[in-house]
Amino acid sequence: MNFSSKHLERAVDEISSLPGIGKKTALRLALHLLKQEEHEVESLATALVRLKQDINACKRCGNLSDHEVCEICSNPSRDEGLICVVEDIRDVMAIENTGQYKGLYHVLGGVISPMDGVGPSQLNIDSLIHRVNEKKPREIIFGLGATVEGETTTFYLYKKLNDASLTLSAIARGIAVGDQLEYADEVTLARSISNRVPYESSISQNSAH
Amino acid sequence: MNFSSKHLERAVDEISSLPGIGKKTALRLALHLLKQEEHEVESLATALVRLKQDINACKRCGNLSDHEVCEICSNPSRDEGLICVVEDIRDVMAIENTGQYKGLYHVLGGVISPMDGVGPSQLNIDSLIHRVNEKKPREIIFGLGATVEGETTTFYLYKKLNDASLTLSAIARGIAVGDQLEYADEVTLARSISNRVPYESSISQNSAH
Repeated sequence: MNFSSKHLERAVDEISSLPGIGKKTALRLALHLLKQEEHEVESLATALVRLKQDINACKRCGNLSDHEVCEICSNPSRDEGLICVVEDIRDVMAIENTGQYKGLYHVLGGVISPMDGVGPSQLNIDSLIHRVNEKKPREIIFGLGATVEGETTTFYLYKKLNDASLTLSAIARGIAVGDQLEYADEVTLARSISNRVPYESSISQNSAH
Repeated sequence: MNFSSKHLERAVDEISSLPGIGKKTALRLALHLLKQEEHEVESLATALVRLKQDINACKRCGNLSDHEVCEICSNPSRDEGLICVVEDIRDVMAIENTGQYKGLYHVLGGVISPMDGVGPSQLNIDSLIHRVNEKKPREIIFGLGATVEGETTTFYLYKKLNDASLTLSAIARGIAVGDQLEYADEVTLARSISNRVPYESSISQNSAH
């Protein structure tokens, strides 16, 4: 691209370094910003800088927080005996949005993926084991994605944490609510049959929503 | 969405105010920025602020520039007798990328669109008429899009500028290079027949590329 302005070129280069944003989209965004008031652009820029400067990972669970310990970990009404292990803070947000879970979390910051060069040492696994040894929760829920990497990580954690005094569970795989059986893949359908639940408990869960 | 951090929430709000970026994409971008080095995020923020502070519209043609007059207008080797009227600076960039045009530009900053509340007074039309009266170019090329709004604006400018001493032309509409005739719409095909050019001139243009 031939830019008539060095500042425009630099802004487009910077914006297009973001994932999923190419040069054309970056140019469209830059031209949009040019039409905005100066204080609006400054407000965006400040929000980005403060994001990086002022956010910490919670030192207990790895969730993002404005404080040393996140709101969930410091909430006395949450059940400290229950820890749900998730990949990412987006998963924490998704589970929190259900309003059904009252335990704590542990954010791994990724999943084991040799293809991407991510091994157990790059994830918050040591801190999870340390936390389990120290706080002695009664149950760990593996809430990782139903991908090869997610299942591998779950199995790795299962091997590390397997202990008679600790219940290890995984979130249910099955037919999504609202889905037709005929469109489900075989593995999901087979799992949903082998992991069937008593009918009474499935009714009470439905009516709770 | 339930955010565990106010700074994250603010950044997501700011990013999702950009056109075409929703909350989920904004969150993905914010989490990406969190993984970057602080100086990289600052470099992005600075580029955005400088974009707004340091870029001017060229006072002659309306193209974006770091100076009062843009590089194209101040280039003595460009043909001052030729002005191509375009909607947007992206059109200037597109025409410059062809490397075939050596005249000047006039950027309208939009097209007449009553549906969007854009009338002639919001566009750089007065400055175009003033420029034509002052500089007396020999030809104006209408390089607006082949949309209803583009054609309307072209017709409006044609009425305003129509003068015996000034050649008014429009960029050719026709079959795009590489396209099959059978997939062209009727209007384009009809125009490409009525605006046919001598075969010799079409050969010399092809070999010039």
